[in-house]
Amino acid sequence: MLTKEHISDWFKSLQDSICNAFEKEDGVGKFLEDNWLREEGGGGRTRILQNGNVIEKGGVNFSAVYGDVPDFLLRDNAISKLAKNTFFATGVSVVIHPHNPMVPIIHMNVRYFEMSNGDWWFGGGIDLTPHYVNELDAVFFHATLKTACDKHNTSYYTDFKKWADDYFYIPHRKETRGIGGIFFDHLNSINSKRGLESKALATKEQLFDFIKDLGNSFAGIYTSLMNKNKNNVFTNENKQWQLLRRGRYVEFNLVYDKGTKFGLETNGRVESILMSLPQNASWHYNYYPVADSPEEKTLSFLKKGIDWV
Amino acid sequence: MLTKEHISDWFKSLQDSICNAFEKEDGVGKFLEDNWLREEGGGGRTRILQNGNVIEKGGVNFSAVYGDVPDFLLRDNAISKLAKNTFFATGVSVVIHPHNPMVPIIHMNVRYFEMSNGDWWFGGGIDLTPHYVNELDAVFFHATLKTACDKHNTSYYTDFKKWADDYFYIPHRKETRGIGGIFFDHLNSINSKRGLESKALATKEQLFDFIKDLGNSFAGIYTSLMNKNKNNVFTNENKQWQLLRRGRYVEFNLVYDKGTKFGLETNGRVESILMSLPQNASWHYNYYPVADSPEEKTLSFLKKGIDWV
Repeated sequence: MLTKEHISDWFKSLQDSICNAFEKEDGVGKFLEDNWLREEGGGGRTRILQNGNVIEKGGVNFSAVYGDVPDFLLRDNAISKLAKNTFFATGVSVVIHPHNPMVPIIHMNVRYFEMSNGDWWFGGGIDLTPHYVNELDAVFFHATLKTACDKHNTSYYTDFKKWADDYFYIPHRKETRGIGGIFFDHLNSINSKRGLESKALATKEQLFDFIKDLGNSFAGIYTSLMNKNKNNVFTNENKQWQLLRRGRYVEFNLVYDKGTKFGLETNGRVESILMSLPQNASWHYNYYPVADSPEEKTLSFLKKGIDWV
Repeated sequence: MLTKEHISDWFKSLQDSICNAFEKEDGVGKFLEDNWLREEGGGGRTRILQNGNVIEKGGVNFSAVYGDVPDFLLRDNAISKLAKNTFFATGVSVVIHPHNPMVPIIHMNVRYFEMSNGDWWFGGGIDLTPHYVNELDAVFFHATLKTACDKHNTSYYTDFKKWADDYFYIPHRKETRGIGGIFFDHLNSINSKRGLESKALATKEQLFDFIKDLGNSFAGIYTSLMNKNKNNVFTNENKQWQLLRRGRYVEFNLVYDKGTKFGLETNGRVESILMSLPQNASWHYNYYPVADSPEEKTLSFLKKGIDWV
């Protein structure tokens, strides 16, 4: 019997293994840990690494919280029947901002929700935000995610890649945040949301196996990208561009990201939520890169529907 | 007869006089102008100064737009009767980020709305965000606003100062953005919003006179603060603190500011809307200044209800 405690414990161990792998690849930086309690129930283990060798600022956060269903969920008419339920939510969230602009920003979230009425679901996403799109890295990233997905359901990658394109999008910039990845929510045995008929037969155990494979693939994906690119030379111009791209990352997270909004609206621990923001970011008025530059080439990849695999 | 064209023309002249005063005080920087048209009707004149002597990045924007009432207004039930109306909106928006952390950030917005059903109102606000609160400067700032307000209605300053405390607030940080100022909206002859009975007798002409006095007081307030503080020495530590405070400014503008939200949701000109963001900003995990430092003293002033005059 797969319990919420079992899932939560596994997320904790995932946090450990990701932190270990990142520290090893970074070589210098160490994650500092803050344990926190949520007044309404539960808490978390926030781990932040600042000023490492490769990682400038990053967080690998675990939390397991419970209590009355928060207002933000009740606003969603579809689940207003949950008003008198309690919820349990657990997950791991990661955002890493590297020093070197040739190393991409990465993000992962895997989470599990359970309601006292018996409803439960998994959600998650992994997306890559290169300051400079390297096509080989992009193919490697998407192909690795596809392999993890295909093991469980051959329609997952296609479905969840499209979902990521739609989710990690900055409407006011008409740009995707990066080169996407996968995103999914309300993944359970009976859910046919977004017409994902492929999920109909999956048990909770099978879906958890999928989540575990995704989670376990994550550290290897990013340490490979760190290792491959961390010694790449870069100019001051590249660094300026990185700061501008980080500005867009800030715009996405503060204006659109549902996890951030959820956290801020439910009186979450601000410093854990906003660990996703970079150490430095820039905004220049009306900046557009020169024609045929690597920066312009990168912009050309920041759109939906690119087939990387 | 006071027409919308008259008001709009005056706002344009206000933009001119503010730009002239700021360029003169800066001594080096020049505003660059972009004229833009809005597809659905109207347009604007965006003026941006980057890398001046005192001003690092700032904008003084004029716009006059019209068309069908946008969706965001229709979501507000109280005015859903406007569905079949057209609107006209004009105003000036200013945000200035200085180089020197001892010079405060300033913001002003004055605006006029008119509906085809005959409804009209003025709105506006002026608020100051010092990186380091200087109490004399704070008193000067609030006293000057109070003088401009008192000339028109002795309850304006008290009412609009409280409104600013509530508006320029970052709930997730439990901090005000800066030391406040004044804020008001839907100011018209019959409006008793927020119990401001004092407004009951004001004509459109009288309210416009108030807006003009406010607008005309603005450049002098900020050039005084620039002039007084622009040569103050500062350390690298002061500069780091400035970047962190700018991070909070970004958080307010992207998460809470209604003008920003309005602009982004109505497909406004992004570069004009986001001119309010600083050239550089920082986020450090869980940073808190040391006890009895000037930084901690500044934090102690970032709360509602301080009586500066």
